[in-house]
Amino acid sequence: MADEADYIIAPDPLGARGGLRLTRSVAGVDHTGAQIETPVVEERPLTIYLNSQEIVTAMTIGDFPQYLALGFLRNQGMLDDASDVTGVDYDEELETVVVRTANQTVFEDKLKKKTRTSGCAVGTVFGDMMEGLEGVTLPQVPVKTSWLYALAHQINTTPSLYLTSGAIHGTVLCQQDRPLVYMEDVGRHNAVDKVAGWMLSEGVSPSDKILYTTGRLTSEMVIKTAMMGIPALVSRSGFTAWGVEIAQQVGLTLIGRMRGQRFVCLAGNDRLVRDADLACVRDEPSKSGRKGAKQ
Amino acid sequence: MADEADYIIAPDPLGARGGLRLTRSVAGVDHTGAQIETPVVEERPLTIYLNSQEIVTAMTIGDFPQYLALGFLRNQGMLDDASDVTGVDYDEELETVVVRTANQTVFEDKLKKKTRTSGCAVGTVFGDMMEGLEGVTLPQVPVKTSWLYALAHQINTTPSLYLTSGAIHGTVLCQQDRPLVYMEDVGRHNAVDKVAGWMLSEGVSPSDKILYTTGRLTSEMVIKTAMMGIPALVSRSGFTAWGVEIAQQVGLTLIGRMRGQRFVCLAGNDRLVRDADLACVRDEPSKSGRKGAKQ
Repeated sequence: MADEADYIIAPDPLGARGGLRLTRSVAGVDHTGAQIETPVVEERPLTIYLNSQEIVTAMTIGDFPQYLALGFLRNQGMLDDASDVTGVDYDEELETVVVRTANQTVFEDKLKKKTRTSGCAVGTVFGDMMEGLEGVTLPQVPVKTSWLYALAHQINTTPSLYLTSGAIHGTVLCQQDRPLVYMEDVGRHNAVDKVAGWMLSEGVSPSDKILYTTGRLTSEMVIKTAMMGIPALVSRSGFTAWGVEIAQQVGLTLIGRMRGQRFVCLAGNDRLVRDADLACVRDEPSKSGRKGAKQ
Repeated sequence: MADEADYIIAPDPLGARGGLRLTRSVAGVDHTGAQIETPVVEERPLTIYLNSQEIVTAMTIGDFPQYLALGFLRNQGMLDDASDVTGVDYDEELETVVVRTANQTVFEDKLKKKTRTSGCAVGTVFGDMMEGLEGVTLPQVPVKTSWLYALAHQINTTPSLYLTSGAIHGTVLCQQDRPLVYMEDVGRHNAVDKVAGWMLSEGVSPSDKILYTTGRLTSEMVIKTAMMGIPALVSRSGFTAWGVEIAQQVGLTLIGRMRGQRFVCLAGNDRLVRDADLACVRDEPSKSGRKGAKQ
């Protein structure tokens, strides 16, 4: 079992942190007709403002509204290091967060056109997304496979809403073989945005980090990771061709279908140092053709 | 194995239909350092217009652009039976679809505010989503569990991109124990919208249908199913509390965590007829605590 003391922020499936109730017990009926009570994940609307401008309403489990707001705005390109964030005000009753900056920018033009990507990029113009990547250079740092196997093992045995309720995505910020910050939410992009918001808030460097996600490696996941300045993105799940192409263009190390001893690297293989002794890595049986076991 | 002749529209992982290439072979490196070639799912941008108004750009696998456009607009409330669709023009080179109607409506106000739900509801005002459900009454039709087990078995053994590439969601329109139309896409909402577009195009009634999805039963999936007029929604995956609440409000039969013999019904149990002989239903071992096997 993972030692949760290693995490700076660990998942909190029982809602012990701050007394926030992340799941609710719901009455239902099972396959035999028996009455049951079962936990389901709570989602709440959170409206994000940038200064006086309403930007979006996101459905979220509600555990880190300030990080979600900061990270969302950052990953949409509406905040940068020059924005000079002066405050992040969360009103629990109104379910709103206002991010205040010293330098105000108006984003009405960005808000007019929407791109629905495979995961949803609300408020982002598609061309803007690709433009935002043009200046991105990711650091040439080694990524050891022994770290990846250690991370996968720790993350996959950490109690979380993902394991208990099955309606949620997790994204974990890691450093070498240590998971640091494990964020979850009903939408995978919320989880990534919360990580970005935490990094911005704490002034944490992305250069020596690895991002691990339970979700698919879509173009949007790749773009966000690159825009966050993180050089490697890892998932149990599969790829999309566009995500691979973008990863290759920006020089991101992209690893997917990571289960047991196996994984596939479709971009940035040059960072990988295959130092792991595979004999010491527990394998996972391949379940070809069975639903629920994505190839 | 499922008899694909039973499907009106079956999945098409090899892209045989219309010569469309749904996956692309990509070169990469596996965990041992060996060079490999592996199929990954292609996503392409598709820009949807309603008459002269640009609505959204969706990333899609590109197999049914007309159904996607129709269904998206329908499920966003921008098309209804009174809209009188006069044409659906797909331009493959420009990657655009224009849906033309005799009765023109302007939706600029809807486009200004966005709601990012757990799955993404681009262009939909949150309040509008709930309002759109106010007039909805779903038919009180029986839903036999023998049908559900038969559907799950057929669907889970049908060759599809989901099984081969793991980066995609499937939604299947069913009638009793027969899967009719199996739509897939990188985003689960695209898959649902394509089903809606097909139904609109073919004039198919929703009253006696069941919707089966590989994705989570989020609030948005529930809302779309209800707006399509389909009385039952089934998934292998988990629930969210909001999705359950909406299902209870509109009287939708909501079944999740359906694996092997087991399932949980958290709304609309009154439609269920537990006629299945469970001894004849193959069970699936529970894999508590292991990642990849959501509870």
